[in-house]
Amino acid sequence: MSELKYYGIAEIPKMHIFGRLCRQNDPLPLLFNGSGIEVVVTGSDLWIDLETDNDFHEPWVAYELNGALMGRQMLLAGEHSLCLFRNMEPSTPKRVRFYRELQAMSEDEKCKVLVKGLRLDGEFQDVPKYERRIEFIGDSITSGEGTYGDIADVDWLAMYMSASVNYATMIARELNADYHIISQGGWGAYCGWDNDVRHNIPSVYEKVCGLATGPANEAMGTQEKYDFTTWPSDAVIINLGTNDASAFNMPPILNPDDGLMYGQRRNEDGTHNREDILKFENAVSSFLKMVRKNNPKAVIVWCYGMLGTDLLLPITEAMNSYRNDSGDNNVFFFQLPNTNSETFGAHMHPGAKAHVAAAKELTGFLKEKLGI
Amino acid sequence: MSELKYYGIAEIPKMHIFGRLCRQNDPLPLLFNGSGIEVVVTGSDLWIDLETDNDFHEPWVAYELNGALMGRQMLLAGEHSLCLFRNMEPSTPKRVRFYRELQAMSEDEKCKVLVKGLRLDGEFQDVPKYERRIEFIGDSITSGEGTYGDIADVDWLAMYMSASVNYATMIARELNADYHIISQGGWGAYCGWDNDVRHNIPSVYEKVCGLATGPANEAMGTQEKYDFTTWPSDAVIINLGTNDASAFNMPPILNPDDGLMYGQRRNEDGTHNREDILKFENAVSSFLKMVRKNNPKAVIVWCYGMLGTDLLLPITEAMNSYRNDSGDNNVFFFQLPNTNSETFGAHMHPGAKAHVAAAKELTGFLKEKLGI
Amino acid sequence: MSELKYYGIAEIPKMHIFGRLCRQNDPLPLLFNGSGIEVVVTGSDLWIDLETDNDFHEPWVAYELNGALMGRQMLLAGEHSLCLFRNMEPSTPKRVRFYRELQAMSEDEKCKVLVKGLRLDGEFQDVPKYERRIEFIGDSITSGEGTYGDIADVDWLAMYMSASVNYATMIARELNADYHIISQGGWGAYCGWDNDVRHNIPSVYEKVCGLATGPANEAMGTQEKYDFTTWPSDAVIINLGTNDASAFNMPPILNPDDGLMYGQRRNEDGTHNREDILKFENAVSSFLKMVRKNNPKAVIVWCYGMLGTDLLLPITEAMNSYRNDSGDNNVFFFQLPNTNSETFGAHMHPGAKAHVAAAKELTGFLKEKLGI
Amino acid sequence: MSELKYYGIAEIPKMHIFGRLCRQNDPLPLLFNGSGIEVVVTGSDLWIDLETDNDFHEPWVAYELNGALMGRQMLLAGEHSLCLFRNMEPSTPKRVRFYRELQAMSEDEKCKVLVKGLRLDGEFQDVPKYERRIEFIGDSITSGEGTYGDIADVDWLAMYMSASVNYATMIARELNADYHIISQGGWGAYCGWDNDVRHNIPSVYEKVCGLATGPANEAMGTQEKYDFTTWPSDAVIINLGTNDASAFNMPPILNPDDGLMYGQRRNEDGTHNREDILKFENAVSSFLKMVRKNNPKAVIVWCYGMLGTDLLLPITEAMNSYRNDSGDNNVFFFQLPNTNSETFGAHMHPGAKAHVAAAKELTGFLKEKLGI
Repeated sequence: MSELKYYGIAEIPKMHIFGRLCRQNDPLPLLFNGSGIEVVVTGSDLWIDLETDNDFHEPWVAYELNGALMGRQMLLAGEHSLCLFRNMEPSTPKRVRFYRELQAMSEDEKCKVLVKGLRLDGEFQDVPKYERRIEFIGDSITSGEGTYGDIADVDWLAMYMSASVNYATMIARELNADYHIISQGGWGAYCGWDNDVRHNIPSVYEKVCGLATGPANEAMGTQEKYDFTTWPSDAVIINLGTNDASAFNMPPILNPDDGLMYGQRRNEDGTHNREDILKFENAVSSFLKMVRKNNPKAVIVWCYGMLGTDLLLPITEAMNSYRNDSGDNNVFFFQLPNTNSETFGAHMHPGAKAHVAAAKELTGFLKEKLGI
Repeated sequence: MSELKYYGIAEIPKMHIFGRLCRQNDPLPLLFNGSGIEVVVTGSDLWIDLETDNDFHEPWVAYELNGALMGRQMLLAGEHSLCLFRNMEPSTPKRVRFYRELQAMSEDEKCKVLVKGLRLDGEFQDVPKYERRIEFIGDSITSGEGTYGDIADVDWLAMYMSASVNYATMIARELNADYHIISQGGWGAYCGWDNDVRHNIPSVYEKVCGLATGPANEAMGTQEKYDFTTWPSDAVIINLGTNDASAFNMPPILNPDDGLMYGQRRNEDGTHNREDILKFENAVSSFLKMVRKNNPKAVIVWCYGMLGTDLLLPITEAMNSYRNDSGDNNVFFFQLPNTNSETFGAHMHPGAKAHVAAAKELTGFLKEKLGI
Repeated sequence: MSELKYYGIAEIPKMHIFGRLCRQNDPLPLLFNGSGIEVVVTGSDLWIDLETDNDFHEPWVAYELNGALMGRQMLLAGEHSLCLFRNMEPSTPKRVRFYRELQAMSEDEKCKVLVKGLRLDGEFQDVPKYERRIEFIGDSITSGEGTYGDIADVDWLAMYMSASVNYATMIARELNADYHIISQGGWGAYCGWDNDVRHNIPSVYEKVCGLATGPANEAMGTQEKYDFTTWPSDAVIINLGTNDASAFNMPPILNPDDGLMYGQRRNEDGTHNREDILKFENAVSSFLKMVRKNNPKAVIVWCYGMLGTDLLLPITEAMNSYRNDSGDNNVFFFQLPNTNSETFGAHMHPGAKAHVAAAKELTGFLKEKLGI
Repeated sequence: MSELKYYGIAEIPKMHIFGRLCRQNDPLPLLFNGSGIEVVVTGSDLWIDLETDNDFHEPWVAYELNGALMGRQMLLAGEHSLCLFRNMEPSTPKRVRFYRELQAMSEDEKCKVLVKGLRLDGEFQDVPKYERRIEFIGDSITSGEGTYGDIADVDWLAMYMSASVNYATMIARELNADYHIISQGGWGAYCGWDNDVRHNIPSVYEKVCGLATGPANEAMGTQEKYDFTTWPSDAVIINLGTNDASAFNMPPILNPDDGLMYGQRRNEDGTHNREDILKFENAVSSFLKMVRKNNPKAVIVWCYGMLGTDLLLPITEAMNSYRNDSGDNNVFFFQLPNTNSETFGAHMHPGAKAHVAAAKELTGFLKEKLGI
């Protein structure tokens, strides 16, 4: 090893950043699962300097060397300097990706991962350009919940979520795509799993990272309007509806924002109350409008089905209504394979095999739609 | 072997018959692929006596012993006596199923398979009762086209179709279900792959076997109204839309019945012409009404996707429209896995692996809906 | 269809024959499972004319079109004319293989399959030349016993054997090899499963088809010395030892040929009696000598393990002894994957999945040894 | 979280230790890959305190929660306190395993992992007893080399080795077995891949961890005689021969210990020199004697074949010789599936899929031999 040279994040000459950017970029916040940095470097040793914080939900991170997962670990609040590789043959270029495993944590204002810089005894080379951009919008499934952990585990914890074992990451790799994830466990298109109408993804979609609240996050600019023109997407994958379906099985709850009770209802015969279904459908079609406005050229695919298909027909009804109103024909529905007894992961969520299956089917569809 | 005793079909004391029955039942016509007879017998030898006829499209048949496929062969016009097993240990009961591989042949009026009787040196035992009844309605996919034959084969021939390698048969076996198949290659919900509006399944659904025309078939009663009360189904699977999608890529054609030209159109930007989509959607919702009328208690599942999903949103739009008009909530859409380069069979149709994949996904869904 | 022209077997201008040939070749006897004929033809229809006979064990046959299995059926004693395809596009060449499913039947002197000729309305084209020749020698595993039939079936019947679902056929296809099978259920290298020392493959290996006895077979020349120079093999696969292992668990039996009792013994601690193991090992090393003499350039691979590995070390001891004595280093041992609860077929024999697994492993090994 | 209580390793009331123990046990050295500790605890948080050191080859560690891999990371020289879980439901028992990923490093005297203690806010419960003990002896395959890393990676580095993705770990889990690994990349039964005769596993087998040299290791007792009676094994798996085979393709090298040149030779026709083969065979049979002496009741299985089978017959010749000399019949050979283009991992070594395949086959065999 020659002597390591420190590069502050702003001094790194060649680097690819995954995930949405906010106003603050030095140190660089990794806001979502899958957010990270990628470099191609010569040299024998590479280190990354980080600052993290958290309250209940500690961030986890993972890193890949030449596309293969090498490490995954928890980072508790503090300053960290992690060695990403050492003692490698100096002249051979290595491609390294370091990324956040944990979703943006709407329930932990302190949770953050900041990349301060890299230390290297070699040179930075160009990171090969990705051929396309895909945005993945979702709930716990897209947050990778259950992709780590034993099938019997039922705590709701940071460590069970990931980007490393995640259909979004698999599809992006297969399609040579840069990708963004915007997801939150428990949230829906209209309301959360427990009827909390505040927990709808559309309300945060147009902010940089509306899920990251509190003074520290806001100071970085997470609540600012996201500028979609900085990263024009070729495809947007929306994987929502699973929590909206759960809401119909849960009691109503009070929304502290307006002091009212909210609850999706079933009819006496067990079917969904039509009025409440329409609330959901309105949310779906409005969200499509919002996504289209911000992604004018993207193929939009609404995916659904990894944890049941209760709302499949309502979703498509809303999609058809949106299509008829807008004349937008670049919008598709795609059912993903259901998770079954062989493919469950922890916490009754899709496990690694379920993500592999979903990625395989959806990759085929996207190849067709993107003309790959 | 003791001496074989001949039992005319009407004399067989215990037997299960698969497939729709028509007025003539001695000899017993096997009208569709999957139509057949099943017996449980003791004795060392079992033979089946048949009479078949055909013009261009010769029937193929298959037979299973204790659930395992033993033989599959072509039967050219004439009288046949086939040995189904011989020299077996006489006292052990054997379960034997003999069935038609070839779909009902709308293009070959002479094509028929008649079971005249069985010859046995043992006793007939009870055939275990199936726990439920499932009707499968479809096109070439449900006719098993391409489940036999090399991937490079492109002739349109009887021998490439089957019930032996067919998602319908696989699902029925998995769910311990008696099943009916009503399918025809090239046909659709509104029109055939080539815009022939005569080739729509709804027009034949309420006849015993509307696909089997000509004097000989009619004499057996194939064109008579089918009495659905004789076989009340627990589930109806409709797998249609693939040929309706093709029609949008084909030129218009003349319908000799009314002397008019018919052709589904695309707009200049390549999207489907809305007026023509509505013709298709009307056919879908009308067919759902027809199916429901005849199957008042069945779970109805519209499946789609084994050869692309071009019409997915129109199908669901029609389904939602039907649901809203009828209040019928026991109707579901289910997307099947697309056929890919690893799963194609002959003639660019789903091969064995594609049928296995479809059966696996749909079986899981049906278990949930049927409470199994 | 134009008019069919009949070609006696001797008049077929271009044809490939699988399996050992005997003196009689018109009509052509198919002596072993896998023995058959292959043609590439134009025309719309192809028929094959056959004469078969049998007593207890009826022959089964199968046929492939362009490499895909189309039919499989029983043929009872008599003259047969089977249509192999009809109504195909006449100008496209079709490759058709027709072959025997049933092993040579040492227990049924009457059992035979004779190909008399073909009827065709097109032209014969060259059958592409196979790149190598592989001989498979074995017992019931290589006779494909259990590759058809339900796992619960326990009769010992012709219909459970095959060449169509058989690791030998799979390997030959994968390696573009012409192949011969010489196998017999229940037989071993030294003795049969029941200690019958007459049932050893070496005793019949150098005859054309020593397994086919009786006046009719002998008249065809089955008992004559086989001329190995007519078909110099590139590889010889010996899959024997499974029945020799069984013999150690069975009581001694009388050999009617010499009036003596024979029985492989175990020691009191359950281990194999050394003296008896040496009898087996002598048979193994003698057989290797015999195989080498007749196949001077072949890679010889002794395979073992699809139904347990009791005699693995004795087999290799004999192989090492042979190698040391002969200096022959072109001899290899290869363990095949054991059959397990997921891969059993009928009659406690390897099923289709077990044959696929064995073929996959052995194909890899042969590629290496044959420099493919 | 209640307050964490620190337990020095000697104070932990209930714990299972994986891997050979040496004289020093507080702090507890983890000597081999797979060496580790396991506890079942209540409480919300668990931490482990460690001290590590290394020169070129840094240790990697991994940890499982309830049997699922949660983290894997590098540990550079120093004191560490790693959180293994936090904020879990306190009353539910959690089973946690922490273990070394990196093999014993014969090339890095400073490399070590010491467990100093645990910090917990709950109670220790009994670790369920394992039903049997299995020792795995091997080379780089058993060190898990290549189970991490991209297929194109060719550096020889610590990070590519593991116990987390390793057939030994998989088999132990499947058989509910406690297990020990004793392995070293590049070493053989007689000599290393490069003809270095010092690199033979038998020379270190009877020491606690003969691979760990230098003053620091020796002070812990690694070079002392291992007391096999402390951990009587039920099965010993020897997976050696792959490097001995490579040696025949490499030039001779100087052994600095005796100043002589050593090199396994091939004959002019490419076959192995018999004299040199016998050196290898002597090493094999002597090692079997040594293993049997120390494991009087164990089933001994010599496995081979994950990276070719060049020495299969010599290994079995030595095994037969050992069996004949000793009368020991509880010794078996088992060929493992070869690694192929679909199953390679990094550095031309077996990847995860190859380990899964090997584990599956060997587990089946061990179940039979251990009467499970």
